[in-house]
Amino acid sequence: MGLGTVGRAFLRALAENRDDIGRRLAEPLEVTRILVRDPARHPEERHRLTTDARDILDDPEISVVVEVMGGREPARTYMLEALRRGKSVVTANKEVLAYAGPELWAAAEAGQADLRFEASVGGGIPVVQGLTQGLAADRVRSVVGIVNGTTNYILTRMTDEGSSFEQALAAAQAAGYAEADPTDDLDGHDAARKIAILASIAFGAHVSPDDVAVEGIRHVTAEDIRYGQGQGWRLKVVASARLEADGLLLRVGPAFLPQDHPLAGVSGAYNAILVEGEPVGQVMFFGPGAGGGPTASAVLGDVIEIAWGRHQGVSAPRPVRYRPCPLKDPATDELAAYWRLDVVDRPGTLAQVAQALSEASVSLRSVEQRPKPDGRATLLLVTHRCREGALRQAVANTGRLPVVLSMGPPIRVEGVD
Amino acid sequence: MGLGTVGRAFLRALAENRDDIGRRLAEPLEVTRILVRDPARHPEERHRLTTDARDILDDPEISVVVEVMGGREPARTYMLEALRRGKSVVTANKEVLAYAGPELWAAAEAGQADLRFEASVGGGIPVVQGLTQGLAADRVRSVVGIVNGTTNYILTRMTDEGSSFEQALAAAQAAGYAEADPTDDLDGHDAARKIAILASIAFGAHVSPDDVAVEGIRHVTAEDIRYGQGQGWRLKVVASARLEADGLLLRVGPAFLPQDHPLAGVSGAYNAILVEGEPVGQVMFFGPGAGGGPTASAVLGDVIEIAWGRHQGVSAPRPVRYRPCPLKDPATDELAAYWRLDVVDRPGTLAQVAQALSEASVSLRSVEQRPKPDGRATLLLVTHRCREGALRQAVANTGRLPVVLSMGPPIRVEGVD
Repeated sequence: MGLGTVGRAFLRALAENRDDIGRRLAEPLEVTRILVRDPARHPEERHRLTTDARDILDDPEISVVVEVMGGREPARTYMLEALRRGKSVVTANKEVLAYAGPELWAAAEAGQADLRFEASVGGGIPVVQGLTQGLAADRVRSVVGIVNGTTNYILTRMTDEGSSFEQALAAAQAAGYAEADPTDDLDGHDAARKIAILASIAFGAHVSPDDVAVEGIRHVTAEDIRYGQGQGWRLKVVASARLEADGLLLRVGPAFLPQDHPLAGVSGAYNAILVEGEPVGQVMFFGPGAGGGPTASAVLGDVIEIAWGRHQGVSAPRPVRYRPCPLKDPATDELAAYWRLDVVDRPGTLAQVAQALSEASVSLRSVEQRPKPDGRATLLLVTHRCREGALRQAVANTGRLPVVLSMGPPIRVEGVD
Repeated sequence: MGLGTVGRAFLRALAENRDDIGRRLAEPLEVTRILVRDPARHPEERHRLTTDARDILDDPEISVVVEVMGGREPARTYMLEALRRGKSVVTANKEVLAYAGPELWAAAEAGQADLRFEASVGGGIPVVQGLTQGLAADRVRSVVGIVNGTTNYILTRMTDEGSSFEQALAAAQAAGYAEADPTDDLDGHDAARKIAILASIAFGAHVSPDDVAVEGIRHVTAEDIRYGQGQGWRLKVVASARLEADGLLLRVGPAFLPQDHPLAGVSGAYNAILVEGEPVGQVMFFGPGAGGGPTASAVLGDVIEIAWGRHQGVSAPRPVRYRPCPLKDPATDELAAYWRLDVVDRPGTLAQVAQALSEASVSLRSVEQRPKPDGRATLLLVTHRCREGALRQAVANTGRLPVVLSMGPPIRVEGVD
């Protein structure tokens, strides 16, 4: 279902790797029907196109449905019906999975069909399988990743070339790494869907993307990034799910990572997911987070798994086993933060800002004052670790000071006490 | 079978993660017998110890045998018998797998039992599953990895602290990262077994560790590493399997990697395996390459997979499908190389060395001459890319020069033309 970039790459991979796949499976894989909106756009596939989903859902000969059309509807409805009718489903659709996961699993169990979604997170990186199978013996404590290639490309470009956010976004759009409307990527919603999916499989947590605290990167400036570089930090959009004593903490947002952090070196449109568990320790999966080829690799890998299982007589899904998993209030989390303020450059300004922080029980680790034109100055603050609630109070206090002209939101700093 | 570091970590992980595992499986996993040499050493396991493998092999109630005793025999014989009798086998034994892989697969097919070996390469990193399942849709072109934690620990220490090879080796032994007899690690034999296993699953190549061209690291000096750092290179022991037009090239040896190479940042006892394939592109798996906990994670993950399959009625193995795969002669491969020579410090020495290289059609990219005490000098050469056969000839020519006092073997340099 769907014949866009991923669908076409899927057909190509299936054709080009037919021999290798044949060696692994007893029976060949055959695509018999392709659902499209506009058949005229795909004349080369004429003989197997359809515009009617019923041609697929009602065909008893079709045992696996590959959903690569994207969007919530009608994809969700088609997947649910396919599963209930005993057709296994492979999907790259993070939106449907993140919002309708439990419903899909229930349909899969009802139809005794399999549901696989490796491509929904991390493109070609086999991280879903790594978590559900390879690390099945582990108690996972955290899943922390760079799961949005668009923002990683933008931040990498700003870091390597000193360009502004706007310039880097334009470059990402020109290179095909960002869409015309990049809201979902820039504001963290895409990454929130992916970390919700990862949390559901790593912890059995019944969570939705709406449970994830998200922060975007539109406010990040070249000056922020340069300052971090000077401290030995790299700015990344980090998505994380951590199981703490008082609950599961879900976040997406920019963070400065120390240079020797395993995720710090992940650049460009690459993705990486770092899993910490017991007894394995730290394991990281790295690779292309998007694109037709990598996504097709993951989708086709899932199809091969299902075909192999069917050959063995298996049709049951390996469902996510949900369990109660209370969410932690992010306000109770601790962090050190970097923070940029534009202020009036006159004696006493710094003292007023320090006082505003201190009243919120936030203590400063370092501060740098940079004179700017027109009697202004920029303050670059780094706090010691404090409660996020206290930091929010400090931001509110500071915002009320007449000497403060404007300020960006604080950015978390990892690896700082 | 076996109750050393890995065996004990396995029992611990099984006990501690019983609830999580129970959620994934319909029936509990129970260890009923443990084969040991000396029962007196394990009083806490008294009730289930045995010194007779027959108590395991002849017990019809035992469906999975976990082999963590190590060594070629009797491990190989026990595994073969278990498989032929329909008991699935999970092993961490890279030696038996690398040398007796085809024999084990034949036994598994004969007994319709499963054979799994995630822990044999990369400790807790789920790379075997990543290659056989996650990337099943891809045509793999190369598998390149840091798969020996001991040598990576030594080289990291030499790099970070400027210590000599001997000092770093002593530190590795003190920290438990190197054995009393470190030959297998230092001379590349351990890595050769692992890359042979990876090549067999990535390419279906029927290869043995004896097919791998190995070079050790005993000759590497702090000066070599410092010189590389000055060029922006990191020295790593790289194991690689590359499918080229004229065959499969298998190597293990030290190599300078450019700083931005995905493997360059893998430090300490960590392992990483970089896979390139079509259509996925580059995917990397990173994590702890050894140790009781990580290895137990991989072994127990395999056991859970088998238990899940059995519950579904599956018992057949997912065997390696061997196919003809000619080996490439390393002498026909091309490389750029770094090379250190101790010479007599007098006019004309450099000209003689350059002439010796030129006679073998090897051209110099750079040369640095460093005066040393007692009328000696050190030459640090970097060649342009050349045939490995030509380089060997150049080494032979140079070794015959009376002005050359001693020399280390050339070290490959990646990312240089």
